[in-house]
Amino acid sequence: MAEEVVRVGAVGLGRWAKVLADTIKRSDRLRIVNCFSRSEESREAFSQQYQCRSAKSYQDLLNDPEIEGVIVTTPNDAHAEPILEAAARGKAIYVDKPIAHTIAEAITIEHACRDAGVILSVGHSARRLQGNRKIKEIMDQGRLGKLVMAECNFSNDRSLELTPDKWRWYKEKSPGGPLIQLAVHHVDTLNYLFGPAKNVTCMAKRLYTPAEIEDVSMTVLEMESGQLCYIGSNWASQGTFFTNVYGMEANLYFMVDFNFWSRSDVVDQHSRLEIQHRGFSEHQAIPLRQGDMFREQLDEFADCVRGKKQPEVGGKEATAALAVIYAALRSAATGHTVAIKEVMGD
Amino acid sequence: MAEEVVRVGAVGLGRWAKVLADTIKRSDRLRIVNCFSRSEESREAFSQQYQCRSAKSYQDLLNDPEIEGVIVTTPNDAHAEPILEAAARGKAIYVDKPIAHTIAEAITIEHACRDAGVILSVGHSARRLQGNRKIKEIMDQGRLGKLVMAECNFSNDRSLELTPDKWRWYKEKSPGGPLIQLAVHHVDTLNYLFGPAKNVTCMAKRLYTPAEIEDVSMTVLEMESGQLCYIGSNWASQGTFFTNVYGMEANLYFMVDFNFWSRSDVVDQHSRLEIQHRGFSEHQAIPLRQGDMFREQLDEFADCVRGKKQPEVGGKEATAALAVIYAALRSAATGHTVAIKEVMGD
Repeated sequence: MAEEVVRVGAVGLGRWAKVLADTIKRSDRLRIVNCFSRSEESREAFSQQYQCRSAKSYQDLLNDPEIEGVIVTTPNDAHAEPILEAAARGKAIYVDKPIAHTIAEAITIEHACRDAGVILSVGHSARRLQGNRKIKEIMDQGRLGKLVMAECNFSNDRSLELTPDKWRWYKEKSPGGPLIQLAVHHVDTLNYLFGPAKNVTCMAKRLYTPAEIEDVSMTVLEMESGQLCYIGSNWASQGTFFTNVYGMEANLYFMVDFNFWSRSDVVDQHSRLEIQHRGFSEHQAIPLRQGDMFREQLDEFADCVRGKKQPEVGGKEATAALAVIYAALRSAATGHTVAIKEVMGD
Repeated sequence: MAEEVVRVGAVGLGRWAKVLADTIKRSDRLRIVNCFSRSEESREAFSQQYQCRSAKSYQDLLNDPEIEGVIVTTPNDAHAEPILEAAARGKAIYVDKPIAHTIAEAITIEHACRDAGVILSVGHSARRLQGNRKIKEIMDQGRLGKLVMAECNFSNDRSLELTPDKWRWYKEKSPGGPLIQLAVHHVDTLNYLFGPAKNVTCMAKRLYTPAEIEDVSMTVLEMESGQLCYIGSNWASQGTFFTNVYGMEANLYFMVDFNFWSRSDVVDQHSRLEIQHRGFSEHQAIPLRQGDMFREQLDEFADCVRGKKQPEVGGKEATAALAVIYAALRSAATGHTVAIKEVMGD
């Protein structure tokens, strides 16, 4: 039973690296043994906090014979380079969503990892929320009847605190703002629940953020399966996360208390899933077990490294999610509905 | 105090005429004294049920010296003719939403009523729900902070029962299906809360209805004031009605139990308004008093006839709501964002 722990190096040591490192502390499957960030201060602080070595360069990190994989949480436009180098060195890769900054980079990453035969796992954790797992189960059981539509929202007020020293400030690095950072989670979950998207229309604009990026967006997806799905996402109002799924026989309402979003060990306790059957007023609570979305994903990554699993969200799935975001961005810029296949050629 | 009761004739005697007639029975301000429908059977049944005379022709109804106004609940494409005739005869008009079948008809109606100096009141009742009244009050008090966006849904499964003898079956008579019948309510409420819309993008399609019309739609509005607003509306899943308003300081969540939609004397008891302040998990219930949206509107109509009020929703407001629906229809057909001013020229 005792599987040897998978030793990894952390690359990019911002807030999210710490959320994942805290998760890894709860896991007996992985251990962070080394870390790298361009900022010496950051890597020394991380090294102390998580009791690991620190590397002076990314090459030094990859040269560490002990590491089998890397955990990449650099800015979006700094995903491709460390991933491609890790793949070339035969290291497994866990990268936070979105997979990359552009579709072209996403496809390059996917092909490189496939060709190198290394594991690529992308952190689209939201589908692993217990509420989303239960929605999928209920849909698969046919308990909603024929599916009509879905509505989601993922918002928080992070853009109000942005300053020019943050990469998320810049349109070039974080196009669409909440669209590429938050809505992309729901896109992956909608792909998980309904299959791939076909067409996308979107409005996105800058209302209140001091930064360059848009801070409010609304996106409508037509899925290949026929249903329409909506994703609202802003970076100006308080933390909000919900998914409504409408079927001919029943509706589901799933809501997460965003205040616990980065506490994946308790977030499911702070979530609510309700079903309303056709013709009934009552919203019945559906009990959810306590999962741990980040840990599940990282444990799965360890299993993949040990050859026991394939990543649930690999390069293809993550590229599909990013493609919806780029279709939405193009739609917002042009005022036209955009087909996914149009952006996949970019 | 005792104001003389306003005597009216009912035109178009379907399901909605009865909802309004039941409402008028609760009011001491109006009385239905005559009715007309092309179907002799319908008018005799209505006449018996509501203890009023029946007229053999619409002209006969208008010739009834007792009536001061008409209550029009004919199919959308049969609004203009009876309204224009009533206006020419100096009768006040209450018409169910939408004001008319087309923008051109809506503008003709508005001008004719204005020129004839007759009251025109349009049944956009949803803004009169106590929850919407309270949302407006809270927004006006600035308690939400700067406004970010809003999301609404109004759906029911009525298209599944449609048959070819119903006017709502036909694209020509009921374009957009739930869009023109249900979403138009939220459009008026959004105009009430945020002011006029500027641009509209929409996806609408036919999924399950046996009828010709679309049965699922998602519409995104950019308001003149800057905010984005979403309206989901379908005719295939069970009755749903909600409005979420997102502000920088707090969010509001308003939900109505659709099973009580046509019972305006109790619907506010079956509604829930909650506020969530920035940084807090709790959704605090905001008490709502029991109103009566249909009665309020009809009583207001009586006050207008007596020269004591102007209609809250007259020709201009109702035309603005219809314009959003036509912009949405054009957007769904063309895949382009449509400006309100584009459709107002039609």
